[in-house]
Amino acid sequence: MPTQQLTTVGSAALDTVETPFGSVKDALGGSVFFIGAAGGLFAPVNIVAVVGDDFPMEEIDFLKKRNVNLDGLEIASGSTFRWEGRYHENMNIRDTISTELGVFEGFQPKLPQTAKDSEYLLLANIHPSLQIDVLGQMTSPRLVAFDTMNLWINTARDQVEEIISLVDMVIVNDEEITLLTGEASPVIGAHKIIEMGPRYVVVKKGEHGAVLINKDDSPFLCPAFPLVNAKDPTGAGDTFAGAMIGYLAATDDIGAFNIRRALVYGTIVASFAVEDFSLNRLKDLTMNEVEERFRQFRTMVEF
Amino acid sequence: MPTQQLTTVGSAALDTVETPFGSVKDALGGSVFFIGAAGGLFAPVNIVAVVGDDFPMEEIDFLKKRNVNLDGLEIASGSTFRWEGRYHENMNIRDTISTELGVFEGFQPKLPQTAKDSEYLLLANIHPSLQIDVLGQMTSPRLVAFDTMNLWINTARDQVEEIISLVDMVIVNDEEITLLTGEASPVIGAHKIIEMGPRYVVVKKGEHGAVLINKDDSPFLCPAFPLVNAKDPTGAGDTFAGAMIGYLAATDDIGAFNIRRALVYGTIVASFAVEDFSLNRLKDLTMNEVEERFRQFRTMVEF
Repeated sequence: MPTQQLTTVGSAALDTVETPFGSVKDALGGSVFFIGAAGGLFAPVNIVAVVGDDFPMEEIDFLKKRNVNLDGLEIASGSTFRWEGRYHENMNIRDTISTELGVFEGFQPKLPQTAKDSEYLLLANIHPSLQIDVLGQMTSPRLVAFDTMNLWINTARDQVEEIISLVDMVIVNDEEITLLTGEASPVIGAHKIIEMGPRYVVVKKGEHGAVLINKDDSPFLCPAFPLVNAKDPTGAGDTFAGAMIGYLAATDDIGAFNIRRALVYGTIVASFAVEDFSLNRLKDLTMNEVEERFRQFRTMVEF
Repeated sequence: MPTQQLTTVGSAALDTVETPFGSVKDALGGSVFFIGAAGGLFAPVNIVAVVGDDFPMEEIDFLKKRNVNLDGLEIASGSTFRWEGRYHENMNIRDTISTELGVFEGFQPKLPQTAKDSEYLLLANIHPSLQIDVLGQMTSPRLVAFDTMNLWINTARDQVEEIISLVDMVIVNDEEITLLTGEASPVIGAHKIIEMGPRYVVVKKGEHGAVLINKDDSPFLCPAFPLVNAKDPTGAGDTFAGAMIGYLAATDDIGAFNIRRALVYGTIVASFAVEDFSLNRLKDLTMNEVEERFRQFRTMVEF
């Protein structure tokens, strides 16, 4: 039977990252771990992904204590997906140095029953044909959110458009909106996406915050929390999405006003994630810290 | 005696501008006209600038009906300052095609008594030695706001630092903060500027809004109004600053909370300015339209 849980399917990776503030090698990465660590603060999360038999499973023990069910994390024979990237002085810009897909290349998501029965589904960035397949495995999801990337829009546009027509919420950045719709204006482009089916488009603007475009209501403008010690932006978008949908699952309220609040929680948890490399800051993050920063944020937007 | 008026000193120009949405030739431009048109919606504005004897004075008649005193607009023998620029598809990027200083090169601001007696001074982007000179001519200003550009930070840093130490509010963008302070983080950089003297730093982020950094209070995060028909961003920053300081002059309240509201009014008026080329949209803008969009904005930030 359907439950107030969050299921997410995406990548599980080991990241080698260099930023102006340091570097890590083969650190925990991939969308599902950021989503699990962030969403698990609010609601039970079911992770569906694949790692290789070289994956250091003990490093994700902390997720189990945080409401994260790893039954859907397949361990396949071979190497874990590895990504290596380097950020510029301005951390909005990064170069991908290498991508080794490993076992991720043959990933066929198989959802355990608990994952199927979740009412909240976050389709993180994987091939749209897999996203369509996962959605088909779900029992009766109440809210389906979707992320993608330029690569899939360029190489599998028909399937990207198909999955967009099936979901409730599209999470994109400015560049992806333009690529999807041909519109230079994110606002106009977001409304074109809504015409394709979804009720909500969440425009991620990184250090500039996010905007919620709503089919039936006025937009919501969500500034970013001002950061003084950002060290590594990797995973910030997944953390944002994970906290946002985790909050919706926990409150089980998908009305426009609650979705606004979900964006703010996403913003707040992401502001912690970037304060350290990999999942390091999320590991010991508490809801007390989140609520305290949420209150600070409120005082920063009053006028 | 001091009055609740705004005095501004800056450039008066004729702009030739091309954007993806059209072009204009020798159109009204320069900081003081945008500041006058925006600030004049709220409070009397005294413009101090210079034009050549080729300047079409009849085109600024509308400013007189809007509380703008042109006694400080000198008409010098020679050509008006001309700027030509072209915006890319992404209108955050522009190329300067030509700059002809004309009479602006020998500009020596001379303030009429009304301008000297104003309590609110907005030093728009001109050489810092002129800004220092103008500040010295003021009788007893209550709030002095200051804008600059990379050129002066690079070529006259000592004078830029001197004027910063004398003003109450610095209005800058991310790039200028980094150039001024060596800090990649705008928040940390803004606090370094505050250590130089000012109480307030307003960080302009263009289409991403603005942030107010405050010596004694938490930051204020001001998102941008979502634009669906931006045509020409020229003058948006000056319009923002003009409306902001004009609102402060009108309310005569420089407390932190009122400055937040001033940023919102700046954001709103600037959102109109970019909807047409040059000053075209500001010419017939009414306070009713401003207040209506202000109310819309409020509904867009609630959570």
